[in-house]
Amino acid sequence: METPWHYKFSTRAQTMTSSMIRELLKLTEEPDIISFAGGLPAPEIFPIEAFQKAAQNVLANHGQKALQYGATEGIQPLRQLIAEKFCPPGMNISADNVLITSGSQQALDLLGMIFVNQGDFILVESPTYLGALQAWNPYGVQYISVESDDNGMDTSDLERCLRLGPKLIYALPNFQNPMGVTMSMERREQLIKLADQYGVPIIEDDPYGQLRFEGDHLTPLTVLDQKMRQGKDFSDGNVIYLSTFSKTLTPGLRIAWVIAPDIVIDKLVMAKQAADLHTTTFNQYIAYEVAKDGFLEKHIAKIVEVYRERRNIMLEAFDECMPQGVSWTHPDGGLFLWIKLPEYIDSIKVFKDAVEQKVAFVPGQSFYVDGTGKNTMRINFSNSTPKQIIEGVHRISNSIRKHMK
Amino acid sequence: METPWHYKFSTRAQTMTSSMIRELLKLTEEPDIISFAGGLPAPEIFPIEAFQKAAQNVLANHGQKALQYGATEGIQPLRQLIAEKFCPPGMNISADNVLITSGSQQALDLLGMIFVNQGDFILVESPTYLGALQAWNPYGVQYISVESDDNGMDTSDLERCLRLGPKLIYALPNFQNPMGVTMSMERREQLIKLADQYGVPIIEDDPYGQLRFEGDHLTPLTVLDQKMRQGKDFSDGNVIYLSTFSKTLTPGLRIAWVIAPDIVIDKLVMAKQAADLHTTTFNQYIAYEVAKDGFLEKHIAKIVEVYRERRNIMLEAFDECMPQGVSWTHPDGGLFLWIKLPEYIDSIKVFKDAVEQKVAFVPGQSFYVDGTGKNTMRINFSNSTPKQIIEGVHRISNSIRKHMK
Repeated sequence: METPWHYKFSTRAQTMTSSMIRELLKLTEEPDIISFAGGLPAPEIFPIEAFQKAAQNVLANHGQKALQYGATEGIQPLRQLIAEKFCPPGMNISADNVLITSGSQQALDLLGMIFVNQGDFILVESPTYLGALQAWNPYGVQYISVESDDNGMDTSDLERCLRLGPKLIYALPNFQNPMGVTMSMERREQLIKLADQYGVPIIEDDPYGQLRFEGDHLTPLTVLDQKMRQGKDFSDGNVIYLSTFSKTLTPGLRIAWVIAPDIVIDKLVMAKQAADLHTTTFNQYIAYEVAKDGFLEKHIAKIVEVYRERRNIMLEAFDECMPQGVSWTHPDGGLFLWIKLPEYIDSIKVFKDAVEQKVAFVPGQSFYVDGTGKNTMRINFSNSTPKQIIEGVHRISNSIRKHMK
Repeated sequence: METPWHYKFSTRAQTMTSSMIRELLKLTEEPDIISFAGGLPAPEIFPIEAFQKAAQNVLANHGQKALQYGATEGIQPLRQLIAEKFCPPGMNISADNVLITSGSQQALDLLGMIFVNQGDFILVESPTYLGALQAWNPYGVQYISVESDDNGMDTSDLERCLRLGPKLIYALPNFQNPMGVTMSMERREQLIKLADQYGVPIIEDDPYGQLRFEGDHLTPLTVLDQKMRQGKDFSDGNVIYLSTFSKTLTPGLRIAWVIAPDIVIDKLVMAKQAADLHTTTFNQYIAYEVAKDGFLEKHIAKIVEVYRERRNIMLEAFDECMPQGVSWTHPDGGLFLWIKLPEYIDSIKVFKDAVEQKVAFVPGQSFYVDGTGKNTMRINFSNSTPKQIIEGVHRISNSIRKHMK
């Protein structure tokens, strides 16, 4: 495209390019494709009736408030509900520690805004969530990466990395995007201890934590941090916790939240005021209305059942048809699993082949900050039916076989 | 508040302070106060029934799509509707030129993100919309200001200012926030000509344009720019146009839009993807449903009638009780008017007095980039009933009188 001479973009904008994922996903939008590419919840179990009822109640009882401008922090009843009911047990917080954001993506962006100077380092997992990198890249951040394996972020090399002086640590302890792995308790404890020792705040991103298919919930980093401080005020804490209704209710509402010490919330509120004034009041009221009386817990149980079945079917299909030399993770929850191909296979080539066979996934390279991961792929199991999963996995395994030596 | 040593904020965040408006508005939240402070629409005429119907239709007919993740650009039917029906006549654009944003505040933020480098200049009116300054300050912008009077931005000094090399010009041609004034046709033409001559893109912020109480609509800058280019493709244009449903439908939806040349939309989409992925699909569907069949035009006519009456009552009350030496604007539309006190009166002192008398407004100084405007005040007339307006104006005039020599 021709650049008119009168549009002089910022240095920041000149480095922005459409993400590979975004471009690839365009290929996957055709209706007859089986897509394991996105991170989309299963729309067929969206609680549409509950939304219909909630929308009516909100408009009938709070219409004028729900359609008006609102406070930047979010509406009080929802913040209260999150503080009391929808944050992990042991996190002793008040509504003042909760900021409602327009999706967790906004939380990541605002955190970049308030913490990162040009050239600062953030410590991330390798691989890590691509959306976080997209949010932070425009602020001129650099990354230090720590490998993740079947037990989550590997903490054995952490101390060396912390001595490099990162501004923040970014961790996805539960059913990590993209790998689907969960950080072990031992590693969580070590991470909390070292982060405290080196004075580096942690962002604990937990969109999937409630979608656990088996085993017990593991204590969040935020709660471990509190325990270590032996009951001191939450505001002394070292962890910023992110969660969302996108995976438990619906993503189309764009309602997520940050739980953080007051001093961090204060800065985030100022940044959010400049970014979008506040998150839609209407949807906050609806989320509150749907979630307040125990509906959400029942609905989460339903989601867990559906996704567990889909994961099981996918793992069975993998066992059945994946060629030797290919390995994959066995997630205890969440939306994704992760495939490792033999080193010599480039998953972008597999992707191009797969799309011709009408099946899609995300080549894993984008989730790495160092250009590695060419032989990896992220597979979503929440957004396809059992039948599609079986068929799609067979097609993918065929595409992989084509590239095997 | 004590700053834990482990929160090292960015330079950007250290300059963020809660805006004076924000702090002052807290004082005005008590239920018995008459507030002319906010820029809030009249909630008693929110089209709640239309929303109830729309919410039911959207959920019944498009539930799965409306609650799912959506494209960063916005949903296609809404972008199409805006391109065809809800942009000013003469603006020949397609849906590809429309980006849906989470309120116009987000549009301002994203424009800062893609255009402004640390130290760049933006040319603004004096006074100008405070929210724009809040959006751009974190990017390290500096300002050049051009005075506004009863005919909007004064273009007589514009050429000198353009020779200083601003990156952008920010203009609010219709019923400007905070003054309520409208830019004359002559000045619009001059602005367009000079901006083109010096190669400086214009941001035309038009949230109130449709709320005209009398007289004819004036041609938007965007259309004048097109005319000057004599029918060339829109993408050659020099103006970026912002509008919103916040003032014509309801602000609680947070649905606004940018109309811009493709090359600008492309960059904005990348920036928006990093900022919040996309604006709530649910609310986009609802806005589309409410607006699509001619309802919005009828509803705007109703708003205009109500606000016109409120403005008239306010102007009458001013005529009746304001002391000599106080002057004010006579807006042809919008939500605000603007008071100028004698030079020696500080409107913050008047404000403090007024709040004690249970009436509020916004001291005008925050709308200036150069610390002037201490003797000005912004008054909103859309959010108070006729009775409140009469009572409130009397109280304010009493507060002013106390400070008169």
